[in-house]
Amino acid sequence: MSMCNLSVALLHHPVYNKHRQVVTTAFTNLDIHDIARTARTFGLSRYYLVTPSLEQQQLLQRVVNHWDNGWGATYNPDRREALSIVKVSANLAAAVADLQQESGRKPVTIATGAAERPGSLSFQTLRERLQQSDQQHLLLLGTGWGLTHELFEQADCILEPIRGPGEYNHLPVRSALAIMLDRLVSAPHINAT
Amino acid sequence: MSMCNLSVALLHHPVYNKHRQVVTTAFTNLDIHDIARTARTFGLSRYYLVTPSLEQQQLLQRVVNHWDNGWGATYNPDRREALSIVKVSANLAAAVADLQQESGRKPVTIATGAAERPGSLSFQTLRERLQQSDQQHLLLLGTGWGLTHELFEQADCILEPIRGPGEYNHLPVRSALAIMLDRLVSAPHINAT
Repeated sequence: MSMCNLSVALLHHPVYNKHRQVVTTAFTNLDIHDIARTARTFGLSRYYLVTPSLEQQQLLQRVVNHWDNGWGATYNPDRREALSIVKVSANLAAAVADLQQESGRKPVTIATGAAERPGSLSFQTLRERLQQSDQQHLLLLGTGWGLTHELFEQADCILEPIRGPGEYNHLPVRSALAIMLDRLVSAPHINAT
Repeated sequence: MSMCNLSVALLHHPVYNKHRQVVTTAFTNLDIHDIARTARTFGLSRYYLVTPSLEQQQLLQRVVNHWDNGWGATYNPDRREALSIVKVSANLAAAVADLQQESGRKPVTIATGAAERPGSLSFQTLRERLQQSDQQHLLLLGTGWGLTHELFEQADCILEPIRGPGEYNHLPVRSALAIMLDRLVSAPHINAT
């Protein structure tokens, strides 16, 4: 099982809603499975589902347990394997602390979003850093209308956004993560013509 | 609004289930929205939702209408714009005929899946073909356990699978499409180290 020094956290708080109010979003079932399968395919170490809601944490844990050691584990072993990297955390600090305990060193946090921000790392730069480092890196993804401004300020670095060829730019978080991991972790393929 | 000579069809039939039986899958709501938003972000011309089930076609059309000209159109214009490229078709032949009528020429069909198959096009080759052609190309994606063997034989060409660095390879169809479009359509970015 090949693992890399990259993990991902999907934050349900603190994120903006449509009116730029800071909210806690509810998790969606596909955010668990899609991101777990994608993260596992690219060899990520951990996928943290982050929510401060105790009820949501319990519900998430029930879904994960169902597929990890409940009836679902024998019904669909591929899903079990994907969910084996999932952990539920109350907040980002708890996820960071957990990853630090596992890897023995504080992880580098990387905020992501759809907007251009000054000082962002290019995909190429982050890819090279990952190849040259043995430190864990934690990609932060926001649900709803994205991570709050404060989170971008607190993160160790910011990753450049993914842009399509036109003006429309509303990638679902699940699709954005898939593209990020492909750009950061995949075996070389040429997309430079 | 920048458009390219690429479209996508998500087939709910003929696809395999877990036991390699040919079935018709039910659509999921996120397959509509995630793929429409991803396809629109990358400037695709059309996104065909293909199902032979009349009931499913009607239900799909209701969801699309809700966001395209119902209450949802004013509530979420971004979603409306994404869904403006969606069409519901009874089968692949109908989707191909529709795209032929729109573009004036028979589109090239491209089967996709998770398995290695002899004679597959590389992403790089298909990217170059798209850049040099004014013919429409239609990516075929299967739900469930993937497109049937017959569909791979009938398609004009086959695209190489996406591979992660390890053995586990179970990308959700939504994530696989996002990566395909990024590799085929995105502005150049270097992933060749």
